Amino acid sequence: MTIIATWEMSYDGVKAAREVIRKGASCEDALEALINYIELNEDFHNVGHSGWPNEDGVVELDAAMINGDNLEYGAVAGLRNIKTPISVARLLVGSEYNNFLVGEGAYRFAMEHGFKHENLLTKPARDRWLERVMKEDYGVKGHDTVGTVISMNGRVVAATSTSGLFMKKMGRVGDSPLVGPGLYADSDVGGATATGVGEDIIKGTLSFKIVELMRLGVDVKEACHKAVKGLHDTMIKKGETPREFSVVALDKDGNWGAASNRDEFPFVILEDDEVKFMISKDWGRSFEERVSAFEK
Amino acid sequence: MTIIATWEMSYDGVKAAREVIRKGASCEDALEALINYIELNEDFHNVGHSGWPNEDGVVELDAAMINGDNLEYGAVAGLRNIKTPISVARLLVGSEYNNFLVGEGAYRFAMEHGFKHENLLTKPARDRWLERVMKEDYGVKGHDTVGTVISMNGRVVAATSTSGLFMKKMGRVGDSPLVGPGLYADSDVGGATATGVGEDIIKGTLSFKIVELMRLGVDVKEACHKAVKGLHDTMIKKGETPREFSVVALDKDGNWGAASNRDEFPFVILEDDEVKFMISKDWGRSFEERVSAFEK
Repeated sequence: MTIIATWEMSYDGVKAAREVIRKGASCEDALEALINYIELNEDFHNVGHSGWPNEDGVVELDAAMINGDNLEYGAVAGLRNIKTPISVARLLVGSEYNNFLVGEGAYRFAMEHGFKHENLLTKPARDRWLERVMKEDYGVKGHDTVGTVISMNGRVVAATSTSGLFMKKMGRVGDSPLVGPGLYADSDVGGATATGVGEDIIKGTLSFKIVELMRLGVDVKEACHKAVKGLHDTMIKKGETPREFSVVALDKDGNWGAASNRDEFPFVILEDDEVKFMISKDWGRSFEERVSAFEK
Repeated sequence: MTIIATWEMSYDGVKAAREVIRKGASCEDALEALINYIELNEDFHNVGHSGWPNEDGVVELDAAMINGDNLEYGAVAGLRNIKTPISVARLLVGSEYNNFLVGEGAYRFAMEHGFKHENLLTKPARDRWLERVMKEDYGVKGHDTVGTVISMNGRVVAATSTSGLFMKKMGRVGDSPLVGPGLYADSDVGGATATGVGEDIIKGTLSFKIVELMRLGVDVKEACHKAVKGLHDTMIKKGETPREFSVVALDKDGNWGAASNRDEFPFVILEDDEVKFMISKDWGRSFEERVSAFEK
């Protein structure tokens, strides 16, 4: 069994996933526990409750899950007032239709299914938003989506959750809730998920691209490298300026890969029952294990 | 110069595109003219003004455009009260951030850019909706997205517009506004777009898949066939029941392909200055030209 997840913020979430797996949790249970932990942690401002708000000071959340056994997915975007969007997305997995709901429709679905209406704008997030508004500084910032993939008992499942870009326009949707760009999984091949500037990740349909490379027989580490380097180079060739994007992936046997166009991209893995904080460097060509700041 | 577009309803729209091209229109102008024609035609209930409403009797529209020169895109979903969503999506192409807007945010962007707030629910659409509600029949139906690709002067651009499934849940988003599943274009390779049950098209990230196959050197007709047959077979292998999906595509030289898991899939092409109404059969293995009902 292997789990991989983006950014250091996933460290304790991965431990939470390990706990529920020890008690017999499914792939879906494990990823939901992992992501709920981050969504509900008020210290993390890029995911769930306490996420950075949009330009209007409204927190709008995105999340998705895909089951690699049958490609069934669930996704929400622009969801307000619900602390745990991944739990709403998970409920949509396997619907006959209407698997991806946005805005008012996503909120209504959540309310119909017993979720609680809550204020998501915590004081630190509101204060930072107010500070920006006072300075009339509407530049967008931040893109630390939690994206995670699990391989267990021959199954591959991927899931994401994010509050999106700080100071995004109302209704802006990035790659995170999008099956194809933001996440993909096929239990016969593997799974992948992305984080970074969603607008660029979408241009390369990055997560699906990695799974397609693995389908062609490319090793998971090489697939991550090729997808990230390929999109970066293609954008430059086309006269564009790539922003930051990073990926993590697992093949169906639980081998992992990660790559980024940043100098250092932090991620977390669970393998052999051990949680490790890792850094991807050189476009996913080298990796370094470090002690996480959460390990105290 | 070649244009390909889904369904017979595109017939007069493709003629409208030919008109503007004769006057020197760009790829984007041509696809916008094509799609606007269909969006504004009250006889077509699957796109734009007069589209079938959702379960609540509200018309919510989706549209997108991608410029294959630089992969820049614009997209809207769940957009209400704007007759021509493709024109809103086009305005978002090339934004630095916030290229995909949904719901209230998409509507606000449209209002800020001079679009007119209008009632989209025409009498025939309302009557059909009322009839269904009286019978308490909430089954979803209809998925005739206009999807179109143009290849002209070394450029490839793709665009889509739809009102989505009749009786969909509020906020439901299918494949049409999604870069990757619903449409994709790379001027160095080609472009593709899909129509059918969006929930299944998303599972196969179908449009991007076709472009990736062409990138590997697969002929455009074979790429369409492989992508459609591949997703259909994969779903069956995974224990799922595929619903209908169909694709059209162009390679960078303007050669076309189309495929479907329907017995017959109608589409329209413009090549050598001629507009032709075509049927794809045998999973995109054979094609037949017919006289369109609009040719009178």
